[in-house]
Amino acid sequence: MNVLSQALPKPSPIPGIDHVTLAGEEHGLRQLSVWRQSLAAGVATPPHRHDCDEVVLCQSGEGEVLSQGRVQRFASGSTLILPGGHLHQIVNTGPGALELLGIFPQTPVQAWWPDGTAMDLPWRS
Amino acid sequence: MNVLSQALPKPSPIPGIDHVTLAGEEHGLRQLSVWRQSLAAGVATPPHRHDCDEVVLCQSGEGEVLSQGRVQRFASGSTLILPGGHLHQIVNTGPGALELLGIFPQTPVQAWWPDGTAMDLPWRS
Repeated sequence: MNVLSQALPKPSPIPGIDHVTLAGEEHGLRQLSVWRQSLAAGVATPPHRHDCDEVVLCQSGEGEVLSQGRVQRFASGSTLILPGGHLHQIVNTGPGALELLGIFPQTPVQAWWPDGTAMDLPWRS
Repeated sequence: MNVLSQALPKPSPIPGIDHVTLAGEEHGLRQLSVWRQSLAAGVATPPHRHDCDEVVLCQSGEGEVLSQGRVQRFASGSTLILPGGHLHQIVNTGPGALELLGIFPQTPVQAWWPDGTAMDLPWRS
């Protein structure tokens, strides 16, 4: 058992995406990762998939999630349900930062490009 | 893929604990549950354990977590790391509500009393 202070996301090698891993393997977990990310205005994640479920909680801002040929808008207070295997992309469509919690039943988190090759995530996940 | 509005916790059969399952089996997930709970002033969860990891994010208020013979204080902005199998109890030690997100790599979530018998959770988990 441990109690940590939630750090703020810091700039990552992906332009416009700040990241911090709030909980994961480096904190002694084996099954769970929790990320906090901030996407700058106009920024999108690359399209990608995971082989596990993902839940995203939007804490601030507004955006769109593209998945399985659909586009859905979301905003602060939205929960995104992303079942394992679903290709998805998140876009910040608002004027300010888009603040997200990303939750995965896996640590480290594996991500895959649309063509099925493994994504080399630039942070400890 | 689905986008939901985060509902507020509602009174549960456990006095002083309001609960809502933000994400889980009922939303199409197989591996992940996200709960939001509000504990009234002076209220504690029963001591219990899960057979999976748990992460708790404190969104508001202050409390203590008792686990493995230790007591640690936490407050708004704290992350609690609770590895699978660790007996734990969360106590609201503040003057107001204690608002928590509970995150589990399992749906539905199973919980166990200290004597090893299964806990009959009073909500869809």
